[in-house]
Amino acid sequence: MANIGIVGLGLIGASLAGDLRQLGHQVYGVSRQQTTCDLAVERNLVDRASTDISTLAPCQIIIICTPIDKIVPTIALLAPHLSPETIVTDAGSVKESIVAPATKIWPNFVGGHPMAGKAESGIVAAELGMFRDKPYVVTPIAETNPIAVDKIKSLVESLDCRLFEASPIDHDRAVAWISHLPVMISSSLIHGCLENCPPDLLSLAKGLASSGFKDTSRVGGGNPELGIMMAEYNRTALLDALRAYQQDLAQTIESIDTNHWPKLLAKLARSQAARPEFLE
Amino acid sequence: MANIGIVGLGLIGASLAGDLRQLGHQVYGVSRQQTTCDLAVERNLVDRASTDISTLAPCQIIIICTPIDKIVPTIALLAPHLSPETIVTDAGSVKESIVAPATKIWPNFVGGHPMAGKAESGIVAAELGMFRDKPYVVTPIAETNPIAVDKIKSLVESLDCRLFEASPIDHDRAVAWISHLPVMISSSLIHGCLENCPPDLLSLAKGLASSGFKDTSRVGGGNPELGIMMAEYNRTALLDALRAYQQDLAQTIESIDTNHWPKLLAKLARSQAARPEFLE
Repeated sequence: MANIGIVGLGLIGASLAGDLRQLGHQVYGVSRQQTTCDLAVERNLVDRASTDISTLAPCQIIIICTPIDKIVPTIALLAPHLSPETIVTDAGSVKESIVAPATKIWPNFVGGHPMAGKAESGIVAAELGMFRDKPYVVTPIAETNPIAVDKIKSLVESLDCRLFEASPIDHDRAVAWISHLPVMISSSLIHGCLENCPPDLLSLAKGLASSGFKDTSRVGGGNPELGIMMAEYNRTALLDALRAYQQDLAQTIESIDTNHWPKLLAKLARSQAARPEFLE
Repeated sequence: MANIGIVGLGLIGASLAGDLRQLGHQVYGVSRQQTTCDLAVERNLVDRASTDISTLAPCQIIIICTPIDKIVPTIALLAPHLSPETIVTDAGSVKESIVAPATKIWPNFVGGHPMAGKAESGIVAAELGMFRDKPYVVTPIAETNPIAVDKIKSLVESLDCRLFEASPIDHDRAVAWISHLPVMISSSLIHGCLENCPPDLLSLAKGLASSGFKDTSRVGGGNPELGIMMAEYNRTALLDALRAYQQDLAQTIESIDTNHWPKLLAKLARSQAARPEFLE
């Protein structure tokens, strides 16, 4: 058992804290808000919590669960307080823009991405077992200390996550396709309809929309700040995916425009056949 | 109460038949398959059923629930057997390509589109009350007999549907945006990922895909033959929607490419704010 520090007690941080505490670790929480610290202790998600990051000095492992743009600055703030053996990891949903600079600041850094979540956010939404059977990607680079990687992998496995190892760039490309691209194409479904339908048609469209529209528009109707963060911090991979997607959609348009039904049928059949492979 | 004929005892036809029978109408079913006729009677969805379309001669109202491409030919086959007062309607999911030719064959024709469904198909999936609180669009044109329109509207209201009236072209444009476009953009999400990810990245993407990908890809993983039918019979409206959609997505790409975050934020915020209006 170890002393484990969690910086950022939102949905992800507080849920991880609770699971790690249940496994028997001593969990040290840090939040900018004293009320969040109090709630974390009250709900038994952490053993102790503080707004002061230096309280994490006794920890062997620290998981940074702040918003993406605060991860590297937090590591810089934390570094002077830690012993050199301390392993620092993060829970950011992009990796390329984090892992190299974080490793420069802290050689015992290992990039990570626990992939679970829900519509609600904040400590009040925290849930034990939320990461069980969910993907958890560990993203070492050439400079990463292999002992630190093994320790983080063991921790991930103890949470019963599905462990993946990938380079930061492969991680970012994969999540661009399966997580960030869907947000953008889904948002354009709603926005394109609003922009292009005259008022009468729009109110008819709204009246007729049912489960197909509901599902396809769900992630495009999510938190706009999260969407911006994805786009900003995973810009290159997302742009590549968006452009490749537009080419693919242009082929659909061409098939319909030229009445090339066998070609469109083959594409729809391939989509139908492949979809279950993404859901296993 | 009336004698009501249903041609085509698939999911839609058999479900409508069952509901109309419960309301006290005499329901006459017609299917090409004797086994389907037998099942319809056995399950009490119809009062009688036959493979012979001329058995619908005593009906005052007939609803054509065949696949889209069979609707107009079925009306042509049916016409010689009917008395001129008989009102014929259909349940096709496109209207522009059906209503004018159907009205030419049968002046007492009224276009209709009951909008409910589920993943399963065929009479075995039929369900009582499936159309309750669901949209049902009636699509008269200048030539349509207003008395026939009123009769069909009353029938729709007796099923507790949400009644909409629209021109065939407005219907087709609205469903292009909220039903047919989502199929194409969703299919390209799956297909684009398959085509553009090298094998290692693709298997990582498949492993990491979760609820966001699942929802956004759902309708693109549906029945390919249905997708083709939508594209073929709602070609113009779908092409217009697809092209407008591509323009909208091109703006997203441009915002990301030029780091124009306030513009992208405004778009995502507008999508988030507007989505509930489609789900009421």
